[in-house]
Amino acid sequence: MRAIRGAFLDFVDDPWRHVGDEQAATRFFADGLLVVDDRGIIVDFGPHDEVSARHPSMDVVEISDRLILPGFIDGHIHIPQTRILGSYGEQLLPWLEKWVFPEERRYFDREYAEEGVRRFFDTLLASGTTTCQAFTTAQPVTAEVVFEEAARRNMRIITGITAIDVNAPEWFTTTADEFYAAATELIDRHHGVGRSSYAVTPRFAYGASKDLLAACGRLKAENPDVWVHTHISENPSEIRGVLQLHDDCTDYLEVYEKYGLVGPKFTGGHGVWLTDGEFRRLSAAGAAVTFCPCSNLYLGSGLFRLGRATDPEHRVLLTFGSDVGGGNRFSMLNVLEEAYKVGMLNNTQLDGSIDPSRQDAAEAERNRLSPYRAFYSVTLGGAEALRLDDKVGNFDIGKEADFVVLDGRGGPPAVRWRTGLSVGDAAPTTLEHAADLLFAIMMVGDDRAVAETWVMGERAYSRDAGDVA
Amino acid sequence: MRAIRGAFLDFVDDPWRHVGDEQAATRFFADGLLVVDDRGIIVDFGPHDEVSARHPSMDVVEISDRLILPGFIDGHIHIPQTRILGSYGEQLLPWLEKWVFPEERRYFDREYAEEGVRRFFDTLLASGTTTCQAFTTAQPVTAEVVFEEAARRNMRIITGITAIDVNAPEWFTTTADEFYAAATELIDRHHGVGRSSYAVTPRFAYGASKDLLAACGRLKAENPDVWVHTHISENPSEIRGVLQLHDDCTDYLEVYEKYGLVGPKFTGGHGVWLTDGEFRRLSAAGAAVTFCPCSNLYLGSGLFRLGRATDPEHRVLLTFGSDVGGGNRFSMLNVLEEAYKVGMLNNTQLDGSIDPSRQDAAEAERNRLSPYRAFYSVTLGGAEALRLDDKVGNFDIGKEADFVVLDGRGGPPAVRWRTGLSVGDAAPTTLEHAADLLFAIMMVGDDRAVAETWVMGERAYSRDAGDVA
Repeated sequence: MRAIRGAFLDFVDDPWRHVGDEQAATRFFADGLLVVDDRGIIVDFGPHDEVSARHPSMDVVEISDRLILPGFIDGHIHIPQTRILGSYGEQLLPWLEKWVFPEERRYFDREYAEEGVRRFFDTLLASGTTTCQAFTTAQPVTAEVVFEEAARRNMRIITGITAIDVNAPEWFTTTADEFYAAATELIDRHHGVGRSSYAVTPRFAYGASKDLLAACGRLKAENPDVWVHTHISENPSEIRGVLQLHDDCTDYLEVYEKYGLVGPKFTGGHGVWLTDGEFRRLSAAGAAVTFCPCSNLYLGSGLFRLGRATDPEHRVLLTFGSDVGGGNRFSMLNVLEEAYKVGMLNNTQLDGSIDPSRQDAAEAERNRLSPYRAFYSVTLGGAEALRLDDKVGNFDIGKEADFVVLDGRGGPPAVRWRTGLSVGDAAPTTLEHAADLLFAIMMVGDDRAVAETWVMGERAYSRDAGDVA
Repeated sequence: MRAIRGAFLDFVDDPWRHVGDEQAATRFFADGLLVVDDRGIIVDFGPHDEVSARHPSMDVVEISDRLILPGFIDGHIHIPQTRILGSYGEQLLPWLEKWVFPEERRYFDREYAEEGVRRFFDTLLASGTTTCQAFTTAQPVTAEVVFEEAARRNMRIITGITAIDVNAPEWFTTTADEFYAAATELIDRHHGVGRSSYAVTPRFAYGASKDLLAACGRLKAENPDVWVHTHISENPSEIRGVLQLHDDCTDYLEVYEKYGLVGPKFTGGHGVWLTDGEFRRLSAAGAAVTFCPCSNLYLGSGLFRLGRATDPEHRVLLTFGSDVGGGNRFSMLNVLEEAYKVGMLNNTQLDGSIDPSRQDAAEAERNRLSPYRAFYSVTLGGAEALRLDDKVGNFDIGKEADFVVLDGRGGPPAVRWRTGLSVGDAAPTTLEHAADLLFAIMMVGDDRAVAETWVMGERAYSRDAGDVA
């Protein structure tokens, strides 16, 4: 048993449910204590003086002048695109052909996959991300290597073979039968083992024949506990292609519904162009969407309607995702920066200054990504959307002790004078200060704000200890 | 006399004039030599072997494994907002009231101004920016302090009193007469002295009465050599306010035209909502617009029509600007990142996939911010738009030796494997490699890529030497 002492902030509810009083969703201890057992499970948490009284003799790691949050959750990331993030010039479909397929193919080779996956996890930890839901390639070897490396690091992962059987070069595709057989084997070997979960992962409906989607449906029916992870409504050209390929469906979501894939544990990445009706059906099904703002801007996909997705009448569960390499940054802090900007851009249209008939003050309010909403979304909110909130997302007793230690002075030179404005160099002493610091970190700071990342109660990354491989 | 040896890249023309062959606008020496005289003026430049033969005995600074570019030019930045960048939650007009006016007021005090201005220039140099056109406050003391500090550092600056006399708290405003008198004195003392230039700077038409604009017009008429710097068409609510205040004008640009301000050396910041007609008049007048993508996204102002402004029939001169603190990043590399995203978002509308009637392939092509267009825009392009291209912007003989030394491995951990993909760890050896490296630096890297910044032939910043104050 060991304990970590410092300033802790986490969430106990959804701040979008507390408009005007988001602090009610937040928990903050300026001097807190987190007690972790030998397996890495949280056994106690609260104000230092109360908690320490209950555990008289214990090793205590003191973390001063920092703010400790639950580890970040990335709901949508492509492991084999680690090396090609920031590749020039194309929207979704030509970008896949030009950059993605050739690089992903290299991961059919186990040795290259092992190097890439190792670098991937190193970068992830240096970004403060402790849980991700990830794409691999169409060949099972990539997913295997990912499960192995995640297990070696004791990290929580949701992943699976990323199946594609049409609209890709032949050397890149799989068949429905091969996919079904290999996925079944991987589910047996890895799903629910340690911290690993399997996701049935059709790449996207544009790359999936009816046979492949039927195989996905069969896998989900036979293994109801597995996740389903895919893309949805990212780009208008893609949507047109999907509705040509699946001409028995009237919208993108219907393709996945038809094969029994949409429900709890379903996540569709992007959803930029989802209609109000599709949002309502996702909400009713308990399914989730991943908001990937870096990617949506980088590939020019469009502006995700954050304020619409968070409509309390039809709330859609949301994870936030980097979507590396469609997204150009690994850090969820950069993801929050771009998410904030998307919300603000949405509001140019909603504030009525261009077209008064489109004014919607309530939706505009929901588009504002306050620091509460932002950090909820990459911790507890992500865990809820991924149905992992019994395991991770905040510091509740019984959860796994994954956390990130933030340094408000880390970032470009501009950040130091900025964060000093309200907080000085020490840890924040009030929730207001903590929220102001977090906003500065996400808008002016970057991955340099991640001083340490801990996995299951063990320090897995320390910025000041030096380099990532 | 001294010389710098390394890999150099600069521009000799506008890449938008060379669609399909942008390399024709670019100059690259894998092993180049830049010779600088004791004043800091470039006296020779070219391939090392040729140039060194002409200067047999000379101190040579060898800079290996780096790429050297002209210093970056920031066309639009607010010095007294250094500390409040990344302040939460508002669009332009409420953001000014809540955050900007109170912080800028602190710069009415010389001591605070001196601290802020010192930190400003430190941060600028750490970002690789060597020239800026900057706003100050409505009180002359701020501009005075800026001229003094820039002179102390021998840095090129365009600035002036930032006049506002309406739509601001009374304690924040100036009168037209006070402004005219103080500006006249500052022009006498600082304009054209060393590397300083004065800009007549009405903050924006929404904050300027007719009297104030008339005073600006008088200053420009009496001092035809000075610059004019202001804001234009940033936000729909602002534009509505302007046209109410100046009800004799039919569009935003007309306000400035009416007072004789629009011509060469005029720069209007933002221009997000400029009409095609206003773009044409700006083009015909030889006036410039500053594209501030970080700010336009951060404040939700909208998407600048890059491809329209670069229409060869009516080309508008462009500088790029950080617009700190409306922009949340000092680094022009981050500005390029966001500029690229704005171009891509524009193209979602222009590629015809949403509305075929709006398809415009030529404009869409111009929206693509290739690395050539990007780095041209923050070097020679910025210099041309600011009418400083006889002084800075590239390595032509006779220009001032301001430059930045870029390290392709600097940035988040993800950048190293990424840039190693094409270039390895060494300096690029071909123009293609150099362009690929620059694109990775702007999309995956950040200010950490700035290894050194040189001003007038002297090293003014070194990343590895440590900290900014």
